[in-house]
Amino acid sequence: MTFKTEGENFILNGEKVFLNSGEIHYFRIKKELWEKHLIAAKDAGLTTISTYVPWAWHEPKEGEFDFNGSTCPERDIESWLRLCSKLGLKSILKPGPFILAEYRGAGLPDWFFEKYGDEIKMHNSKGEKVNSDGVSLFHPAYLEKVHVWYDRIMPLIADYQISNGGPVIMMQVCNEIGVFSWLAHQADYNYRVKAHFIGFLSEKYKDIEIINNLWNKKYSDFNDIELPPDGLVPYLSREERGIDHEWHNFWRRYYGDYLRMLTNMIRERGIDVPLYHNLPGWIYGNGFEFPVNITMYEDLYREKSEIIFGVDHIPEFMSYRNLHDDRIINDITRAMQGNKPLFAAEFQCGSREYHVVTNPRELELFYKASIANALTGWNYYMFSQGINPERKGYSGSTFYWFNPLTPEGEKTEVYPLVSKMSRIIKTSEKIIVEAKRKAEVCVLFYPPYYATELERPVDPGCGLIFNYSSIRRPAYFDGLLKVLQVLNIDYDMADLYNCDPAELNKYKQIWAFATDEMDRKDQIKLLDYVEQGGNLIIYPNLPDREMSGQKCGIIRDGLKIEPGGTDFIDSPLIDIIGYKDIKCANPQIVYNENIFKESEIIAINLNSKYVDFQNPMELEKLLISAHG
Amino acid sequence: MTFKTEGENFILNGEKVFLNSGEIHYFRIKKELWEKHLIAAKDAGLTTISTYVPWAWHEPKEGEFDFNGSTCPERDIESWLRLCSKLGLKSILKPGPFILAEYRGAGLPDWFFEKYGDEIKMHNSKGEKVNSDGVSLFHPAYLEKVHVWYDRIMPLIADYQISNGGPVIMMQVCNEIGVFSWLAHQADYNYRVKAHFIGFLSEKYKDIEIINNLWNKKYSDFNDIELPPDGLVPYLSREERGIDHEWHNFWRRYYGDYLRMLTNMIRERGIDVPLYHNLPGWIYGNGFEFPVNITMYEDLYREKSEIIFGVDHIPEFMSYRNLHDDRIINDITRAMQGNKPLFAAEFQCGSREYHVVTNPRELELFYKASIANALTGWNYYMFSQGINPERKGYSGSTFYWFNPLTPEGEKTEVYPLVSKMSRIIKTSEKIIVEAKRKAEVCVLFYPPYYATELERPVDPGCGLIFNYSSIRRPAYFDGLLKVLQVLNIDYDMADLYNCDPAELNKYKQIWAFATDEMDRKDQIKLLDYVEQGGNLIIYPNLPDREMSGQKCGIIRDGLKIEPGGTDFIDSPLIDIIGYKDIKCANPQIVYNENIFKESEIIAINLNSKYVDFQNPMELEKLLISAHG
Repeated sequence: MTFKTEGENFILNGEKVFLNSGEIHYFRIKKELWEKHLIAAKDAGLTTISTYVPWAWHEPKEGEFDFNGSTCPERDIESWLRLCSKLGLKSILKPGPFILAEYRGAGLPDWFFEKYGDEIKMHNSKGEKVNSDGVSLFHPAYLEKVHVWYDRIMPLIADYQISNGGPVIMMQVCNEIGVFSWLAHQADYNYRVKAHFIGFLSEKYKDIEIINNLWNKKYSDFNDIELPPDGLVPYLSREERGIDHEWHNFWRRYYGDYLRMLTNMIRERGIDVPLYHNLPGWIYGNGFEFPVNITMYEDLYREKSEIIFGVDHIPEFMSYRNLHDDRIINDITRAMQGNKPLFAAEFQCGSREYHVVTNPRELELFYKASIANALTGWNYYMFSQGINPERKGYSGSTFYWFNPLTPEGEKTEVYPLVSKMSRIIKTSEKIIVEAKRKAEVCVLFYPPYYATELERPVDPGCGLIFNYSSIRRPAYFDGLLKVLQVLNIDYDMADLYNCDPAELNKYKQIWAFATDEMDRKDQIKLLDYVEQGGNLIIYPNLPDREMSGQKCGIIRDGLKIEPGGTDFIDSPLIDIIGYKDIKCANPQIVYNENIFKESEIIAINLNSKYVDFQNPMELEKLLISAHG
Repeated sequence: MTFKTEGENFILNGEKVFLNSGEIHYFRIKKELWEKHLIAAKDAGLTTISTYVPWAWHEPKEGEFDFNGSTCPERDIESWLRLCSKLGLKSILKPGPFILAEYRGAGLPDWFFEKYGDEIKMHNSKGEKVNSDGVSLFHPAYLEKVHVWYDRIMPLIADYQISNGGPVIMMQVCNEIGVFSWLAHQADYNYRVKAHFIGFLSEKYKDIEIINNLWNKKYSDFNDIELPPDGLVPYLSREERGIDHEWHNFWRRYYGDYLRMLTNMIRERGIDVPLYHNLPGWIYGNGFEFPVNITMYEDLYREKSEIIFGVDHIPEFMSYRNLHDDRIINDITRAMQGNKPLFAAEFQCGSREYHVVTNPRELELFYKASIANALTGWNYYMFSQGINPERKGYSGSTFYWFNPLTPEGEKTEVYPLVSKMSRIIKTSEKIIVEAKRKAEVCVLFYPPYYATELERPVDPGCGLIFNYSSIRRPAYFDGLLKVLQVLNIDYDMADLYNCDPAELNKYKQIWAFATDEMDRKDQIKLLDYVEQGGNLIIYPNLPDREMSGQKCGIIRDGLKIEPGGTDFIDSPLIDIIGYKDIKCANPQIVYNENIFKESEIIAINLNSKYVDFQNPMELEKLLISAHG
């Protein structure tokens, strides 16, 4: 028996398969009911069962491990794995160290927090503990104890791997590790973060004078560099946001270093199955902030790590309001991580909160759309409702609601839906896993516009026109990307920041959402695309500087187009290609008439200024739209 | 024919009626189709038609008025009113000056903005124009032109009033006037706001030393007082939030003065029908921020003006997620405005945005619930879809979507629902308009906790434990108020800040959501209620100061209870009256054991500290819950 990934597919025994998995937490189900749950899962057509393996559960006292149920039957993970094997089910394991999973301490043992107290927690810039389960990821006390945990759990898992004839086919490395900073809007300033940041900068820039020039500083040495502030200190200049851009870049490296370190520890301990990490980001039924989380793992995508990134699809409800979001999230994940499988690591089935009521008919729509949206695997989260061990639940004793199975293993009204989906998958598995999208249009995703989990307010006087987090939703996520789906125009997505220019040249038409900031290398990619005859639509602005704030107008210079200014009109409307009174957004970038031929103008605003035009400067194909 | 209000009812010709109205904008419908629309409305059972009367529409050039269609048939408002009259329909008119209504300029003429430019707009503290349609409400140029508009439109309306045998039964005064500050999170610092603020303070406090004492300042005179900052400057002390509390009080007076001024102008010009203003506040399908808008008109409720306050019920979609919000909004409006009719001035029917799809089956649920939630009148908004005059729409040429009638007057799938609701109302009108709630439980609403449209961030070091806008949703609006509805426990609501203590004494049980701030007079009301034998449940804290920040622990002193401190526990749980592991919020206010008998403790937290208790100090009935 073998299991691996190959390009976008999961491969079991040499065959491309749809990974049809469901989550059951053995530590939240009575041991005598384990088999009943697993049989019901198998009867529903699942091929794989996923579960966390909580460090806190298996090391209840420091140094005292229980994997065979000696202190409590529900700690007997070896029996769990043997049961899976006996029933012909594959197993996905998620041994942390962090699991979250509404488990108190996020899966880290109570004795660990008691022993190290506030010292190992994330700190703010004042040195105070941040109210979060997050710890400082390179703190030696944390790493020491993670080593001990891995020394025990990894060899056990290795014994049950598919390569040893066992059920384990895949493993998750830690869990949603950037979520703490994202939710708290707070970076960690604890253990050696400053030294890491300085190391990152000195490796990247070599010469402190480059930093001084970019940031308008007078550092004599890299060691003089101060960390950017936390809280709500506004950006007072373009340079300050440039510094923040690098601060976000640094955190991407930091998460990359952390997960690569864990990957090495795992491989050293004999694990040979594919590894994945997962991406969260739905907020109250909407996906428009999800890409922030996707960008946080930029340093691990493509060739930068072996980790696959699964997506947590938790839309809460399903309707015309968010069905598009589902695909957009998949598209961005695929564009960024490259040629790896698209797997819904947590695929909503039931709900974490009692007041978020899901119903099977809504879910069915979502499940079917998800197949169309290119998933080749999912993990129903949760397949079984559970009961928390005493004082271990985050939200009381009941874990999850409206699932296919109750904690007693009884089937609910959701169960038949899972069976139905399994039949659909089984019937059409080959078509689903081999389907390819054929699009002639490509929409670009630019990760720096979503690298904002620590962003601060924009001071009105600082010279920044665009605030990414306020423009990207109406103009891009819930704008262009949603509209293209509503109009049924199929499109691919590419990651402009990381892609090879050759990836773009195969498309007849490219849409680029651009503010006035874009790195030089990426401006060059767009200009080259146009000069080679590609059709580029770019809006709402043409960049005049790099993300760092340094002046760079490659596209403007190449096309000999310079905006004439910015209009801000109350209730703005434009007339565009024959349509009158079309709503648009502020600000509008306006252009002077003398740089165009009459025929090139395609839209004017209420001040009769030009805002959209095409084919300037005798270039074949270019459309510039200067409004949201 | 007569129309008036009496207590909670509308009275037509001496009979209590349900005001069954629909909104049709004559200026967005071809004149030749007016009668078709009105006949369809009458056929659907509507008794009344509401419309804005846009100043911008009827005074297209300064000083040139058109009310009879001489420049454009759709300006012939007199024909519109005669048509209503002919068909036996009553009329509600809304002549501004502000109408909003997705009309460019919010109803103010283009020539007015062109003439006065940025000078009459709301300004920020730096003296820059705020990006909003709002103007400085007491600016003399604005008031001068409003006088001219009122001089023309009010006598015309007066001629068509019901007292003169015409169709007009009610009139709206301006429109959602506080919405500009709320949406922009920005106060106006333009025309004489500072002088108004100083006048407000000197009238209230008389002696500058009281201000110096409260605010920790050294002003020698009221004229030294500076306006509080705008933007995101955090509160650095309790005093600073106290100042901001007074700043919000001032704006309530300001809006009060403005609307009372308009009311006087209207009455002086011969209008004798009831007047109302409307309250907005639904955000993307949720009502939890709506009470902010309700509190903005505090200075006009009860005996403080004759204005009735209608509610804009625009929930976007209707489901278990927001059906409770509908009633909560009505309850708070009724508690604050006192014994006046509850009228849905804008009652969702169709939707402003094309992407917010409504469907009749969802709406039917909402409409029926609204009757149960104590409305005695509504105005379908919009009954007719419209076409904007060129360059007058805010969102392109089409105005509203999914309405009962198309602009051509054709019936859609929503039309039968309106007919159905009209039949229900007609059949049960007497029961509906005379229904009274019978509740033995009363939940208190405390307006200062929602007086936050200009709030700034709370600096962690400033000594403030609670941030109203983050605690009030989970603990109160979507907490207590929603839970009581889910559990089907009926309750009344009272406005603690403005009510007479006698209003409270009729209830067996009162629930009070209290932070550590509450004015002296209101603390006295609660203490008196308990001392007279009432059952009070108060959470999550006991006040130790007034809203101004001045020390005041009337309840603590009266009950001889002092919290021992504050616990902040990651993933907090409590054990409460026999239930284990119940999720709660941070912080928990904890109490020392020595002040209770054992039997009084009803909940402990994970640190084994006491967080809930009852019957302390031999008082009969009191329950204090110290967590969210």
